[in-house]
Amino acid sequence: MRAGVFDSGIGGLTVVKSLLEHKLFEEIIYYGDTARVPYGGKDKNTIIRYGIEAVEFFKNFEIDLLIVACNSVSAFALEEMQEVADYPVVGVVEAGVLATANKIKNKDSSILVIGTKATVASNAYDTGLKKRGYKNILSLPTPLFVPLVEEDIFEGEVLESVMRHYFKDISTPDAVILGCTHFPLIASSIGGYFENSPLLVHSGEAIVAQLESHLELSKRFETTKMHFFASDNPAFLKRVAQRWLSEQ
Amino acid sequence: MRAGVFDSGIGGLTVVKSLLEHKLFEEIIYYGDTARVPYGGKDKNTIIRYGIEAVEFFKNFEIDLLIVACNSVSAFALEEMQEVADYPVVGVVEAGVLATANKIKNKDSSILVIGTKATVASNAYDTGLKKRGYKNILSLPTPLFVPLVEEDIFEGEVLESVMRHYFKDISTPDAVILGCTHFPLIASSIGGYFENSPLLVHSGEAIVAQLESHLELSKRFETTKMHFFASDNPAFLKRVAQRWLSEQ
Repeated sequence: MRAGVFDSGIGGLTVVKSLLEHKLFEEIIYYGDTARVPYGGKDKNTIIRYGIEAVEFFKNFEIDLLIVACNSVSAFALEEMQEVADYPVVGVVEAGVLATANKIKNKDSSILVIGTKATVASNAYDTGLKKRGYKNILSLPTPLFVPLVEEDIFEGEVLESVMRHYFKDISTPDAVILGCTHFPLIASSIGGYFENSPLLVHSGEAIVAQLESHLELSKRFETTKMHFFASDNPAFLKRVAQRWLSEQ
Repeated sequence: MRAGVFDSGIGGLTVVKSLLEHKLFEEIIYYGDTARVPYGGKDKNTIIRYGIEAVEFFKNFEIDLLIVACNSVSAFALEEMQEVADYPVVGVVEAGVLATANKIKNKDSSILVIGTKATVASNAYDTGLKKRGYKNILSLPTPLFVPLVEEDIFEGEVLESVMRHYFKDISTPDAVILGCTHFPLIASSIGGYFENSPLLVHSGEAIVAQLESHLELSKRFETTKMHFFASDNPAFLKRVAQRWLSEQ
């Protein structure tokens, strides 16, 4: 099995990390649109256009499946990408909703969704969760977490002050959906901020669960061949990949 | 006189504000490449390509002069843009160096340059200042200030913690070059952080001084007709323009 992974930049590497840990693919082709990152503040139509262009990019490779690791693209452009691709295209938003529903059985549980402005504005998580009967959902754009992670700030004073900025009026939820691929890198800080350890829903783990149960991927590959492409500065992507993917 | 103002996004509006205050132009056409913002973490070659594409964009308008409001583009792509344009192209880096040299006469003065990663990596300010005999220059990438400004955080706890993060080991300089068009919006917080009120060099004021003295623009126009274009979400650009430009 050869999978394509598309992200607006480097954040999708957290999804790749989960895929590698579960040994799901023989080969993974990663494409980060680093020349136009971030997507999270951009317009719906622009994001759809960029998503379709990503499908174009993967035409050069014979992939069996495309994983959209970027929450903003998954939220806005998944259907449009599915229409132009001749293989399955799966996105992290649907996977995150399924993962939440699998773990949180009480429909009155409070669920906090955090993500970029675009992802939150799309209401994609809200819509998916409400369809499954959840009523108590709060969606909050937390765009500053993205540049913090890109600056390798995973804990400490700056992150604490930004968390207070966003979360100061919020009581501890039962679950937090980390609706941006950057956020798993600050998951332990986010978890530590709230009392009573809320469930943290991670896009990478959610995609793995979806692939295993819905697409019935059960074969395991001892090694995965990785290929990295970026629309800008591929050397930087490779450096970050080396760092993030090696920290098991 | 009809000027084009090019920026990677909305930051160049701080330059427009200075141009409007000094009534230098009859008409200003602003183009923000919001579909690909920010440029500050991108590669030199990508920034040059985007700069040349901006000159292409302005072919639709008969401009007399193009002002590159983005420090990263000014630092990397100014010569390449000048080669393809048939009108003068001026950039904020050269203007900032000139403005500093006009105000700081002691060549031993300590000068702190802050900007995006790309601007700092270009060494454009350092090179310009060293040519004029300054020896004591510290250039520091401060990329987190950009998303803070874009979140309307101009003061307060989050900004203070980010300033401590960047400046904690730095003694008060004689001048701070605000080497990113977003930074004038947090100038008073940056000035307040350091003791002894260092000189703050602002790209917009620097460009006005350069236009007045070097290009000998002396005519004044009572009103300036503004046109705004953006490669993504022009409505957002117009909203920000309305807010930033109205606060006199």
